[in-house]
Amino acid sequence: MKCHHICKLPGRVMGIRLLRFSSVVIFLLLLMAGALMALLPNTKDDKMPNLRREPKSQSQSALDSFTLVMQTYNRTDLLLKLLNHYQAIPHLHKVVVVWNNVGEKIPEEMWNSLGPHPVPVVFKVQTVNRMRNRLQIFPELETQAVLMMDDDTLISAYDLAFAFSVWKQFPDQIVGFVPRKHVSTSSGIYSYGSFELQTPGFGNGDQYSMVLIGAAFIHSGYLELFQKQPDAVHALIDETQNCDDIVMNFLVAKHTGKPSGVFVKPVDIRNLEKETNSGYSGMWHRAEHLLQRSYCLNKLVNIYNSMPLKYSNIMISQFGFPNYANHKNKM
Amino acid sequence: MKCHHICKLPGRVMGIRLLRFSSVVIFLLLLMAGALMALLPNTKDDKMPNLRREPKSQSQSALDSFTLVMQTYNRTDLLLKLLNHYQAIPHLHKVVVVWNNVGEKIPEEMWNSLGPHPVPVVFKVQTVNRMRNRLQIFPELETQAVLMMDDDTLISAYDLAFAFSVWKQFPDQIVGFVPRKHVSTSSGIYSYGSFELQTPGFGNGDQYSMVLIGAAFIHSGYLELFQKQPDAVHALIDETQNCDDIVMNFLVAKHTGKPSGVFVKPVDIRNLEKETNSGYSGMWHRAEHLLQRSYCLNKLVNIYNSMPLKYSNIMISQFGFPNYANHKNKM
Repeated sequence: MKCHHICKLPGRVMGIRLLRFSSVVIFLLLLMAGALMALLPNTKDDKMPNLRREPKSQSQSALDSFTLVMQTYNRTDLLLKLLNHYQAIPHLHKVVVVWNNVGEKIPEEMWNSLGPHPVPVVFKVQTVNRMRNRLQIFPELETQAVLMMDDDTLISAYDLAFAFSVWKQFPDQIVGFVPRKHVSTSSGIYSYGSFELQTPGFGNGDQYSMVLIGAAFIHSGYLELFQKQPDAVHALIDETQNCDDIVMNFLVAKHTGKPSGVFVKPVDIRNLEKETNSGYSGMWHRAEHLLQRSYCLNKLVNIYNSMPLKYSNIMISQFGFPNYANHKNKM
Repeated sequence: MKCHHICKLPGRVMGIRLLRFSSVVIFLLLLMAGALMALLPNTKDDKMPNLRREPKSQSQSALDSFTLVMQTYNRTDLLLKLLNHYQAIPHLHKVVVVWNNVGEKIPEEMWNSLGPHPVPVVFKVQTVNRMRNRLQIFPELETQAVLMMDDDTLISAYDLAFAFSVWKQFPDQIVGFVPRKHVSTSSGIYSYGSFELQTPGFGNGDQYSMVLIGAAFIHSGYLELFQKQPDAVHALIDETQNCDDIVMNFLVAKHTGKPSGVFVKPVDIRNLEKETNSGYSGMWHRAEHLLQRSYCLNKLVNIYNSMPLKYSNIMISQFGFPNYANHKNKM
């Protein structure tokens, strides 16, 4: 039998109904599949895009070591003294010297003539003497951890090895040796200080809300985050030649919602300022230095329209070091 | 036109093909949907089922306060002394006294006659004098945080307030005041000790791998986890009247994959043992006490077929307390 035209046959009708039915089913299943896929967690967590930057080298060393970034200006004698010390710190991957001595030759010849050295040391010549030069994303930076150190600060290898192990437990925070705090006042204006300022509203003891980056471990992802900040923030640092660490603490606090820093109490930390032949004594001696930092606090609150810094009173020391019974008590 | 029998018409054939096709599509979509659902994260995270137990009371106090669980045996005079101290600790929600004095009346009348008291104190009469009685899930326990305290230990309110704030930052670990460690030996047999034992294979300083629960904050979810452990574990504690805290440290380490404890260095911790009139001096004076703990370590490794304890050298103190400049350094 043949049908040349549409036949209203049970089979045909069944076919069409089935077609409609299955189309609807397919459509619904696709919807469901789409919904389920939307519910799947993002493999790339939007909260922490910067901190997942893959180190260029996938070697174990790049994941289990750190890069020392030391910015230097007008204290090459101190720098070289410190390099001899820091080049031998355990877990150090490389040293990046940020050479702010514009127009002056780097001491590379002398450095090489006194080789070999335990780790590579790279001198990054800068064209402008900027405080924020050390916050650039240097191509030589292969590790996730960055140890930032001022060029007049000497910290023992023991302290650094311990602080690095602590940083690995708090990789999204600034783990360092110099705590500072801000206080808010009844006028709503913020002020910057150290332990001599009383933190209003807290119980016993003191608090800190920043850890200075001139002696601290920080995740390299935060350097990228810094570069993405509004021009006003970079301009503030350039204007004051100061406050880069306040900015970094703001960034970390905003990013994590936690206190920006974890303070590790140093056993042996020294400031070598007085030992320099250059006569140069560092920015923090300027009369306006602390006032500038208070100024920066308020400017940043204005730029970000919030005060993200959070207080902490956690002080971390190394169990059983240097005194192997430093945890003993009268019990 | 009618077809009484199977007509090989294009429409009919189309219908059947479409039926087959859509069946296949539907089947594939169902497979895909099933696969996607399997990929979805469990809303009930298998890793932490116990720690999400909702406190019975949803009040702010139940989330921001803790319950003191104090087990007592043969030292009621010390208990009462300590209750007067602990009842006034900030953020304390309730006290649960685990009354291991089987057959002896609880001092409830006296307690009530000396009221009112700052917080409710509940006396839980036990029918058997067991060390692990304090690890039961008491219905009166409404908070996520439990402070477990031995009935001869006095810790200052400052220490407790600080340690509680630390626990809130490390809620899945035992945050407490008494660190201990295990060491492994060349024979593979483990031994238990304190700081006088050297941890093999580590650099400078010491390590701890346990925090004793007799002076520590712990998440109430771990009590539930404890109850679910194999009978052999409960039997071990009953056999030794010891090692309940070693078991808890095993549980936490297994559960988190991290060191089980966070050590907070106490400023003011005292053992009141010598002050009791009962003449009872506590289990840890027994000659075999420490040997039992080594024994327990190896038994537990055997039961769990692993050594989950991890070392830590983090020692936490309170910034600026008691000495408001306790973080200062020579810089």
